[in-house]
Formats: sequence, C-alpha cells, structure tokens
Amino acid sequence: MTTTPVRDTTAQDRQNPWSRPEFEERLRDIATTRYHDRHAFNVRMHEGALTPAELRRWIANRFHYQRHIPVKDALILAKFEDPALRRMWLRRIVDHDGVREGEGGIERWLRLGEAAGLDRERLWSAEDVLPGVRLAVDGYVNFCRLRSPLEAVAASLTELSAPGIMRTRIAAFELHYPWIEAEGLAYFRTRVEQGSRDSAEALALVERWALTREEQERAVAALAFKCDVLWSLLDAVDGAGEGP
Amino acid sequence: MTTTPVRDTTAQDRQNPWSRPEFEERLRDIATTRYHDRHAFNVRMHEGALTPAELRRWIANRFHYQRHIPVKDALILAKFEDPALRRMWLRRIVDHDGVREGEGGIERWLRLGEAAGLDRERLWSAEDVLPGVRLAVDGYVNFCRLRSPLEAVAASLTELSAPGIMRTRIAAFELHYPWIEAEGLAYFRTRVEQGSRDSAEALALVERWALTREEQERAVAALAFKCDVLWSLLDAVDGAGEGP
Repeated sequence: MTTTPVRDTTAQDRQNPWSRPEFEERLRDIATTRYHDRHAFNVRMHEGALTPAELRRWIANRFHYQRHIPVKDALILAKFEDPALRRMWLRRIVDHDGVREGEGGIERWLRLGEAAGLDRERLWSAEDVLPGVRLAVDGYVNFCRLRSPLEAVAASLTELSAPGIMRTRIAAFELHYPWIEAEGLAYFRTRVEQGSRDSAEALALVERWALTREEQERAVAALAFKCDVLWSLLDAVDGAGEGP
Repeated sequence: MTTTPVRDTTAQDRQNPWSRPEFEERLRDIATTRYHDRHAFNVRMHEGALTPAELRRWIANRFHYQRHIPVKDALILAKFEDPALRRMWLRRIVDHDGVREGEGGIERWLRLGEAAGLDRERLWSAEDVLPGVRLAVDGYVNFCRLRSPLEAVAASLTELSAPGIMRTRIAAFELHYPWIEAEGLAYFRTRVEQGSRDSAEALALVERWALTREEQERAVAALAFKCDVLWSLLDAVDGAGEGP
C-alpha cells in the first residue's frame, strides 16, 4: 500500500493573506448571505404577515439585544490602548445611551415598543424575554468580553447590512403595520446613517489589523458568529408561538 | 477541662449593617490613613527632596497608571444595566481621553512629562515602566474587570483624598521644582474639581448599594485594595533607585 504525498494547500494558504479587495469581498459576502434579513420570521415581518402579537414579541425580545449594545461596546472600548480609537468607539455608547435622559437608541426602541402598545416598565423587566434570546445576547456580550479586539470589532460588521434592512423595514412598517405610529419608527431612521458610519469605521480597523491569512479568517469567523447570534434570536422569537 | 461558650459577635455583627454615617466614616478613614500621600516617596516629593531623575521616573511610571484609567472605567461602565448610570460614568472616560485629539487627562499628563524633559513617544513606549508598576496597574484593571459593580466603584473612592493631594502637589511643584514649567501642572489643577465630583458620585452609589454589613465590608476592603495599588506603585518607583 502506498500513500500519495499531497501538497498541504491549507497550511500554505495560511501563509498567503487574501488581497484587501478579496478579504473585503469575503466579509461582505458573509454580511449578506448570512444576515438575518433572510430569516423566515424577518421575511414574514417585511411582507406584512406578522400578527400584532408576533410583532410585539419581536420588539420586546429584540429590546433585550438593544439594551446590551452599550455593554458590549464598553467591553470593546476597554480593549483599545489608543485614546483616539477609544474616542471613536465611545460615540457608539452615546448613540445608544443618549447624551441625556430621553435620548439615544435605547430610548427610541422603548418608544417603538410604546407605539406598538407595549409597556416601558415591562420591557425593562425582561419578563417576556425568551431563553434563546437571553443566550444569544449573553453569547454575543461574552464574545466581545473575551475575544481579541480584531474579532470583537469584526463581529460588529453586520452593520454593513444594517442600513439596507432599516430602509426596507421603515417602508414595510408604514405599509403593513399602520397601527404602529410613524414616530415609533425613529430608531430605524436613525440607524440608517449611524450604521453606515459605524460599519465604515469598523471595516477600516479590521482591514488594518488583519494582516495574516489566519487573522483574516478569524475576522470572517467572528462576523459569521455574529450573524448566527442575530439569526438565533429570530429562531427563538419565531419558535415561541408554538409554545414549549 | 471546660470550654467557655463565647458569643459569636462576628457572625452577629454581620447581620447588622453599620449606619450610613458610620459606614461613610470607615470609608473616609481608609481613604485617609492608607492613602499614598503618606508614602515616603510622596513625602519626599512634596518636601522638594526628589532629584530630577527621581521625579521623571515617577512621572513616567505614573503615566502607565494614567493611561489605563479609561480602560478600567470602560470595564466598570460595562457592568451597569442602567443607561443613566452609564452616562454618568462615561464622563470619566471623556475626562481622560478628551473630546478630541490634544485634550483630556492623558494628554495633560504627557505635557507634564514634556515639561519635565521626557519624550512623549518614550512615555507611550512604556520602556521605563517598572515591573512592580505594571503589576499594580494590571492588578487594578483586573479588579475592575472581575469584581462586582459595588467593589469596582468603591475602589475608585481614593478620589476622596485626591483633591487634597493635588492642591499640595501644585504648591510643592511650584516651590521646589521650578524647572518644571507651570503649564505642565495642568493635570493636577483639573483633577481638583474632577476628583471632588467623581468621589461624591461614587460615594453616593456605594452607600446606595451596600445595604448589608457584608456588602459594606466588601466596599471597605475594595477601597483598601486600591490604596494598596497606589502604595505599591510608589514602592516600585522608590525602590528602583537602588537597582536590581
């Protein structure tokens, strides 16, 4: 019996980083093909097929994700040695927490909830948050806590697809769910611009930091993980209607 | 042989929290009696007995502490569930990192270094940072990373004594080290007010959160730990003159 010597292309490939355009294309590909806008629940949302109860369930559960955004961003900020980088990332915390009471993305999400008939106190209580959603959010926060700055920042690159989903969502809500007051959609409107700016900044960092093929692969895997977080959140919300 | 039954006062005491004034007095007592203004190196600094080389050694090593303040504050911020609390704590990060390039406490410390004849790039390089200082700073950052919000905030209460030491230091530098330009002392001047505000806020939180005797004791221990961090930093700087 003979063994055919094979060239270990994998090991050799790892020595050769992708070109910057190829790396960026791979990131954008993940951010497109694995993004949660393709999830059945999201498709139904944008087609106008959700019942009011389903829409409220999504808003309450997604709030659990929203309120933890500044937490994960503070954990990322704590990884940066450079004050200029910290200043840049700090703005994300301000975007969500606001400069003062009554401002910021978390407040806007609460108003979306109220426009859909949900109680603010109840949203804060997290009573209606499903186990799968808790696990997804914990998983993401811990990823940002424990992984490298490169991976934590790469995970944020789902923002590459955020402006698109926000625009579609605003149109879908206005058309299909007129019982939600237009003012309630302020969160989505604000994120169109913030998402574009955030993803451009994060992409520049990831491209600057991921110099070896191994680092590039880690960045792609981090982004795929983050897509799984968002997908899994919708799985939990989608499945909840069937009961345990 | 007989054993005398003793009343287990320790266990009983733990059930009874100190009154708020007594708790505050215990915190203030630690922040006074164990504060690093009593360290021999600091006493010599304020008496005007340090050589230029010793003063530069202190500035370069203390910079290692200063540059990590926003890191520990981001780790503390990430522990807060309440956006209002996060907004309050975020200001500390801005105080040190500045709103833009060329501002903030870290920049002011770099200017103190330059006023004392130290090179900005060399300060960033951390080449002159002593092992004991690295360990002290790592120890403090990890304490803020791993401990409860109560303990992390209580550790910041050395700020109760900061305005006093800053005032003494400004006077001492102007009197004894006139070779350091007055503009270099901007860091100390800014911290008089910031330290008063920060310690008042942190004290209010610690008093609100530490309701049981055990929590109060943890807060006191956290503050004592932080005093040890600052003390230990000066031990390393003081001992370095003797060489390894």
